[in-house]
Amino acid sequence: MSDNVRSLLEQVKNGQVDVDVALLKLKMKPIEDLGYANVDLHRQLRQGVPEVIYGAGKTSEQIVGIISSMQSNGQGHILITRLAPDVASEVQEQHSLTYIKDAHIGYVGDMPTKKTESSIAIVTGGTSDYKVAEECAITAEFYGNRVNRIYDVGVAGIHRLLQHLDIIMSAKVIVVIAGMEGALASVVGGLVDVPVIAVPTSVGYGTAFGGVTALLSMLNSCASGVTVVNIDNGFGAAYTANMINHIGESK
Amino acid sequence: MSDNVRSLLEQVKNGQVDVDVALLKLKMKPIEDLGYANVDLHRQLRQGVPEVIYGAGKTSEQIVGIISSMQSNGQGHILITRLAPDVASEVQEQHSLTYIKDAHIGYVGDMPTKKTESSIAIVTGGTSDYKVAEECAITAEFYGNRVNRIYDVGVAGIHRLLQHLDIIMSAKVIVVIAGMEGALASVVGGLVDVPVIAVPTSVGYGTAFGGVTALLSMLNSCASGVTVVNIDNGFGAAYTANMINHIGESK
Amino acid sequence: MSDNVRSLLEQVKNGQVDVDVALLKLKMKPIEDLGYANVDLHRQLRQGVPEVIYGAGKTSEQIVGIISSMQSNGQGHILITRLAPDVASEVQEQHSLTYIKDAHIGYVGDMPTKKTESSIAIVTGGTSDYKVAEECAITAEFYGNRVNRIYDVGVAGIHRLLQHLDIIMSAKVIVVIAGMEGALASVVGGLVDVPVIAVPTSVGYGTAFGGVTALLSMLNSCASGVTVVNIDNGFGAAYTANMINHIGESK
Amino acid sequence: MSDNVRSLLEQVKNGQVDVDVALLKLKMKPIEDLGYANVDLHRQLRQGVPEVIYGAGKTSEQIVGIISSMQSNGQGHILITRLAPDVASEVQEQHSLTYIKDAHIGYVGDMPTKKTESSIAIVTGGTSDYKVAEECAITAEFYGNRVNRIYDVGVAGIHRLLQHLDIIMSAKVIVVIAGMEGALASVVGGLVDVPVIAVPTSVGYGTAFGGVTALLSMLNSCASGVTVVNIDNGFGAAYTANMINHIGESK
Amino acid sequence: MSDNVRSLLEQVKNGQVDVDVALLKLKMKPIEDLGYANVDLHRQLRQGVPEVIYGAGKTSEQIVGIISSMQSNGQGHILITRLAPDVASEVQEQHSLTYIKDAHIGYVGDMPTKKTESSIAIVTGGTSDYKVAEECAITAEFYGNRVNRIYDVGVAGIHRLLQHLDIIMSAKVIVVIAGMEGALASVVGGLVDVPVIAVPTSVGYGTAFGGVTALLSMLNSCASGVTVVNIDNGFGAAYTANMINHIGESK
Amino acid sequence: MSDNVRSLLEQVKNGQVDVDVALLKLKMKPIEDLGYANVDLHRQLRQGVPEVIYGAGKTSEQIVGIISSMQSNGQGHILITRLAPDVASEVQEQHSLTYIKDAHIGYVGDMPTKKTESSIAIVTGGTSDYKVAEECAITAEFYGNRVNRIYDVGVAGIHRLLQHLDIIMSAKVIVVIAGMEGALASVVGGLVDVPVIAVPTSVGYGTAFGGVTALLSMLNSCASGVTVVNIDNGFGAAYTANMINHIGESK
Amino acid sequence: MSDNVRSLLEQVKNGQVDVDVALLKLKMKPIEDLGYANVDLHRQLRQGVPEVIYGAGKTSEQIVGIISSMQSNGQGHILITRLAPDVASEVQEQHSLTYIKDAHIGYVGDMPTKKTESSIAIVTGGTSDYKVAEECAITAEFYGNRVNRIYDVGVAGIHRLLQHLDIIMSAKVIVVIAGMEGALASVVGGLVDVPVIAVPTSVGYGTAFGGVTALLSMLNSCASGVTVVNIDNGFGAAYTANMINHIGESK
Amino acid sequence: MSDNVRSLLEQVKNGQVDVDVALLKLKMKPIEDLGYANVDLHRQLRQGVPEVIYGAGKTSEQIVGIISSMQSNGQGHILITRLAPDVASEVQEQHSLTYIKDAHIGYVGDMPTKKTESSIAIVTGGTSDYKVAEECAITAEFYGNRVNRIYDVGVAGIHRLLQHLDIIMSAKVIVVIAGMEGALASVVGGLVDVPVIAVPTSVGYGTAFGGVTALLSMLNSCASGVTVVNIDNGFGAAYTANMINHIGESK
Repeated sequence: MSDNVRSLLEQVKNGQVDVDVALLKLKMKPIEDLGYANVDLHRQLRQGVPEVIYGAGKTSEQIVGIISSMQSNGQGHILITRLAPDVASEVQEQHSLTYIKDAHIGYVGDMPTKKTESSIAIVTGGTSDYKVAEECAITAEFYGNRVNRIYDVGVAGIHRLLQHLDIIMSAKVIVVIAGMEGALASVVGGLVDVPVIAVPTSVGYGTAFGGVTALLSMLNSCASGVTVVNIDNGFGAAYTANMINHIGESK
Repeated sequence: MSDNVRSLLEQVKNGQVDVDVALLKLKMKPIEDLGYANVDLHRQLRQGVPEVIYGAGKTSEQIVGIISSMQSNGQGHILITRLAPDVASEVQEQHSLTYIKDAHIGYVGDMPTKKTESSIAIVTGGTSDYKVAEECAITAEFYGNRVNRIYDVGVAGIHRLLQHLDIIMSAKVIVVIAGMEGALASVVGGLVDVPVIAVPTSVGYGTAFGGVTALLSMLNSCASGVTVVNIDNGFGAAYTANMINHIGESK
Repeated sequence: MSDNVRSLLEQVKNGQVDVDVALLKLKMKPIEDLGYANVDLHRQLRQGVPEVIYGAGKTSEQIVGIISSMQSNGQGHILITRLAPDVASEVQEQHSLTYIKDAHIGYVGDMPTKKTESSIAIVTGGTSDYKVAEECAITAEFYGNRVNRIYDVGVAGIHRLLQHLDIIMSAKVIVVIAGMEGALASVVGGLVDVPVIAVPTSVGYGTAFGGVTALLSMLNSCASGVTVVNIDNGFGAAYTANMINHIGESK
Repeated sequence: MSDNVRSLLEQVKNGQVDVDVALLKLKMKPIEDLGYANVDLHRQLRQGVPEVIYGAGKTSEQIVGIISSMQSNGQGHILITRLAPDVASEVQEQHSLTYIKDAHIGYVGDMPTKKTESSIAIVTGGTSDYKVAEECAITAEFYGNRVNRIYDVGVAGIHRLLQHLDIIMSAKVIVVIAGMEGALASVVGGLVDVPVIAVPTSVGYGTAFGGVTALLSMLNSCASGVTVVNIDNGFGAAYTANMINHIGESK
Repeated sequence: MSDNVRSLLEQVKNGQVDVDVALLKLKMKPIEDLGYANVDLHRQLRQGVPEVIYGAGKTSEQIVGIISSMQSNGQGHILITRLAPDVASEVQEQHSLTYIKDAHIGYVGDMPTKKTESSIAIVTGGTSDYKVAEECAITAEFYGNRVNRIYDVGVAGIHRLLQHLDIIMSAKVIVVIAGMEGALASVVGGLVDVPVIAVPTSVGYGTAFGGVTALLSMLNSCASGVTVVNIDNGFGAAYTANMINHIGESK
Repeated sequence: MSDNVRSLLEQVKNGQVDVDVALLKLKMKPIEDLGYANVDLHRQLRQGVPEVIYGAGKTSEQIVGIISSMQSNGQGHILITRLAPDVASEVQEQHSLTYIKDAHIGYVGDMPTKKTESSIAIVTGGTSDYKVAEECAITAEFYGNRVNRIYDVGVAGIHRLLQHLDIIMSAKVIVVIAGMEGALASVVGGLVDVPVIAVPTSVGYGTAFGGVTALLSMLNSCASGVTVVNIDNGFGAAYTANMINHIGESK
Repeated sequence: MSDNVRSLLEQVKNGQVDVDVALLKLKMKPIEDLGYANVDLHRQLRQGVPEVIYGAGKTSEQIVGIISSMQSNGQGHILITRLAPDVASEVQEQHSLTYIKDAHIGYVGDMPTKKTESSIAIVTGGTSDYKVAEECAITAEFYGNRVNRIYDVGVAGIHRLLQHLDIIMSAKVIVVIAGMEGALASVVGGLVDVPVIAVPTSVGYGTAFGGVTALLSMLNSCASGVTVVNIDNGFGAAYTANMINHIGESK
Repeated sequence: MSDNVRSLLEQVKNGQVDVDVALLKLKMKPIEDLGYANVDLHRQLRQGVPEVIYGAGKTSEQIVGIISSMQSNGQGHILITRLAPDVASEVQEQHSLTYIKDAHIGYVGDMPTKKTESSIAIVTGGTSDYKVAEECAITAEFYGNRVNRIYDVGVAGIHRLLQHLDIIMSAKVIVVIAGMEGALASVVGGLVDVPVIAVPTSVGYGTAFGGVTALLSMLNSCASGVTVVNIDNGFGAAYTANMINHIGESK
């Protein structure tokens, strides 16, 4: 692969290929085709973070293969989301994988020792939002962020939230995770001056509609500064929060 | 009509008809058929409040006719909801009607001078909820309730709500009126110990879906003690609030 | 905790802190953080009823821990809703818990011996609404209410309902529980002059949509005085009914 | 056209074409192609009633042309539904058309003088259902049915319905027309032993969803014997009611 | 019970109670309260057919009890719909029950030997609609109707339908049962001149939405004379078809 | 622009740039930025047909500018869809534009004189589908296709469809356009052996839901070979039909 | 059967029956009624491909019977879709059936040795779309098409797609299979000049709504030339793709 | 007001009130009650930006009053969104207001002269997204951000997007605005390594469902780093983008 890159750069130097095309080519090359998957080996360069394996609907064989492909291309830090316990066990027979069952998340490689100065606050409405919150927290930590967990502070007892206001307000970005009516996002959004990423959860019954009500509530927040991700998408919230939290950090 | 009632009561006295049947007949009789409407003249007895005319989709001729029928049967206090301004004008040519344009509501007869000791608090999220709130407030006042209006205290600036906490908490029943994500119902519901009737409004755009999001949010409130009525149904909330507020009042 | 309260009250007495702030502080303090939950120990004062544990999605360990925390803070009466039978069994190994399997509800402490003079009527459309009705009835009884059960009186055979009209009409507040088309709420609402709290149930198939049809029907009741809670939310209906039924009762 | 039919019948007589094919050909032939429409001139034979023109979205020119085509083929009785007043006026310049503005319906030819012995009962929940009810009633009368109108007897005041029970029960088929929660269909369906055709109407607001709630309610009726047509489809209900009402009638 | 009826009739004879009240009382009385169910023992009189037990969500104990109550009140013919095989087995230990597993339907008593002259045609789109079709057919037969089954004639191969046109057209009423896009109802409705009752089924996948697409399609049939029941409601279609098919039959 | 292309090709010849990159560059270059629009001048090469202007929501000034830009780049044949009559008039003041009001479509340049040997059949369910059908037909003709229009042959009178079977079956591809329940697509799809492109239309009322019912019906067609486009998207159907109809044609 | 056909053709020759009727009869005859199914034996003639058995909801006995009926009528190539593994095993005891478990598809007879010159490209967004893609690919191959699989090239790493552009662009028709937001259909559609058939898949969670989001996205593609089939309908896409791919091929 | 603040601070200094309470009080005080609105005068402190007036549903009198209240409290920079042209004209009679009609947005005070070093890229799919894009752009500029507009680069012609990749990639945060299928958000999200805020617009017809399809598509983006706001909510996207873009900027 490096030969290709060198020759490409030489073409640029010689003026044979302009910079745009070269950039494009760089972005487009490094894929390994495993048959069942096109492993994207340049993502760490292109998007600043390693490839994440979406574990749902993949066999343990496929996941093992993708990890091997990545490792043989020098990627030692790999995150796997929505990884069922039984699949995780099978993967662990082949690779050294840390698995957190509560969050259905696993990772290859060590947690980073260096963390950001600034922090991400993860705030949940209730105990039932725990799984989504941990998917979010572990992802954020795996990406090198300092994380503050403030769990079970839903608006039905708003004093619990107000008690933790200082720690919430000190964050550079806040993830609010709530099911049922999702009002917590609006209340937090109205109190702080940093971006709030709202994660609706499928907690609730009847007209909670598996998280749709919380989602709609968050999309219509009367507080400004709230953006939303898919239901139960703790990973997605962490991904964006990580981007924001790293702005201005010394590398 | 009174002849029927007398004869019925005599039948009861003679043991010819038992009390249940008599009660049922009493409930079923007093209807005047105008062709276009079956005016229900005993509702004040049966449900404690006068017949209310739902103005939407009725011509001014029909409304005039129904008012006349009621008045000739001794009902001097009549409320008309969802009454369009032009229809109201035409009705006013035939009857003495007080019309509040902002709330699209009108009434025949005077506002009651005697009010309840206890009060109904009407709390809104924003200025745009004004119309629904006034439909609610005027209905409640027409039914003899003391009403406290606390408007524009939505959760995006929760301190505005907390400032009015004392007056809200002193009510016997609270109506919370909000559009967008409707989070106000949950926040109020979590702070008080009296029934909260939540009215979703059609305020908002996009995924506010004309009030559906606020409705769903309110139905899934993580706070207990919150019940819900139809979107923009200020009248319905006032009707139930009136029932609750009159409990234990000296008649 | 009492030290904090005493010093706060002294501040008030000295004029150092005004009454509002003191009240607010009183409402905001008494929380015990168990890590997985922020137990709210002042709710009985703030909302008149003890904390209720929403059992769904909680492990038996978490529930056992929350009960212990409450008991060690002097709360002897605890209600647990949506408690699965197997979780209940595990809780019973640690705490004395009365469990009613049909309603998936349990409670710690005795049922109150003193009941309200006035009663709550719980009316259901069919036999299939039994579980939701019992969740409602047991909650109401646990809160000290006299409860009248009138089950299986749906509108397909309206004479069954009319037969029980007297007992229904004697209630201070009525809970109507029905699935399918939920018409029972409208029929009851049209006959009585007390608040009707309607609970749609997930009974039915096809376009019953798991209770959505009954919910929509109840929200659009042509009868006034009907408010609605979430699908299958027997607890929520009982909570509000309890508030209403206690109005005017001697304490 | 008659030449074709004769030759076809001769083919059948000669055994050249079997009966099935002949029937099929008879059903398939009599169409006049106007360019903008394929006028179906045999419908009266095939389905027992004349072609009905669905007026919505047709120009007055198109309607005039279709009427002319029908008349020149011997069809003197023509019904036109969903005919806007201005289009009706333009049609009336070319054809003798009776137009009923309230029901947006018109017809060419006289109302039949002979009516069925048995009757269709048309029952509505409120005054606002009037337009749909009249579309239904006039269609039924145009098809030669005796019609009984029982309007404004919704379940919020169920005694109004019970008062008219005798006339409702004497019908051979009942059309129930209601908006909002549409509970009337269930109540009527539970009281009678003849087919009930339920027509949801778009009356209501908010979660009435333009008739969807009434439709869902009617589809889930706990009473048996209720079938449903599209929202506001008074014509469709009359069409089926006419079929049922004519069963067993002397021709 | 008979004493009550006799005394009521004597009251009528004496003129003490008028006919309407007597009829109403007759309709309202004969209920046996089993605690878990209010068994309606007069339905055969009121609606012409015996009480049907909706088996879904009832325990075998409850069903056994209801059957016993009915039998001890002289009702020998009982239909039980949506009866799961295991519950049916348990019921069969107590009562003589004929159970048809494919249709999840059972009945106590013999099939009637006398059938109607006229027939009900039951037409299905595909083999997968079989269960719903048999629920419909057996119900209709249990109510004494001659039934013609025309299965698997969906519009994808319309010649299959046209082949059976004669038998379909000879019916007094037609039930069309189809899933997926439900187009069969429109095609049949356009060919015949008798009432068509359409039953959408939950057959299909993806945007078939469990029968909602077929339901919507049937409600919007461009053919007149089509009415619709709930998804998979074979019983409901048979119930109405039975009513229609018995019109004009010698009793 | 041509300079760029020549130099690019020289780079390819010299081996400086490989074929893929050259192709990509060719595809990516020819855009004229008008500020309000990025006019795509190579589309005729890339996709075989000229750029189509989607007229909805564009001012006449913008449309005039885009046409000018295209013409000055040598594109003489331009189609404009969803062009309101008043906007069309304003465009006609600047450009020679043929406008077909019924289809809200316009074009610059002449209709092609050479047409395909094979034909596209456009089949509609009713007269109300005319506008969508003409958008489809004119688009197809503008792209050089022979088009057969078979209008108003819906399944309520299926003999009308069967009469035109020969002409329908002779097409290389069929567009079926229908509203209400959209059953026509399934019936046609079951009779022919060429691709059927189904266009649901917004014709209908109530549960037609503005075309959603027809769309769902078409997506669930029990006939194979049916693909679907967006509601009222006559242009889109014509676009794909044109692609198919040109396969195997001599250029 | 052949006797019927001969006599029919003689009738045509003699002028006793015209060509249209003869064609219609030919299309309508060859059905074998198995009781549980009407096997359509002429479909290969009428639509160019053999009958396909939709395996979902059919017992192994029914499938075995249908295969036997087809084979005894000379159809040696039979495809069975949505065939569960356990049912497939039972069928294999009676018939020689090739079964591909990953695609839940089976076939009787050999794969065709002769393939089309032109090819169908099948493009998927991710590994999770594999099952639907293989249902599509095997169907297409069974119908004699050359198939190119380009899997796991979703838009999140658009360079993966661009790398395979040449092979995609060389196809005569493209099937794009994607879940989640289904954006791949638009991107491919904007790059190519051949018909794109889009298959939304049920891959995703939360607001993916089981494929509805991908479906809606594909229906609203801003790229022209995209038509859509039902969610997960790989078979349907292959069926239409096969039709298109065979145009202009030498038979 | 300042008196209150001073006394509060003295209480803090004296140790009578602790810092948390003081902070809370500071946040809760500065509200001016205009009757129709509770103007929030401390928002600039609390959330870093001035109060924004949501113009929809407010009269010009109300808006004039709110502006006056703000100005008399020292707020010179005021933004008003969703401001209709006629209301804007009336406001301009009382206040110096800059109004941008295309974006339905206005502001009081000058645009800031100092801008951020880093930039926000605003990318749209088509010309029809212009209004929402300008609401976003002007809001961002009013908050002092450097803004790059890249309009009309939808995925149907993906080369248009790739051409602008450099400028897009140089932004600190990107707002993607698109209607129809909203695929642009995924494509951009897959190419960049900064936060992408996606704004679905109501552009499209039929199953675009007024922006819902674009919203769902964006929520299910297979690209990470995409968060979403309400349909057409250009303001909301700008608000969050502003927060992110200011991180690390020298104040």
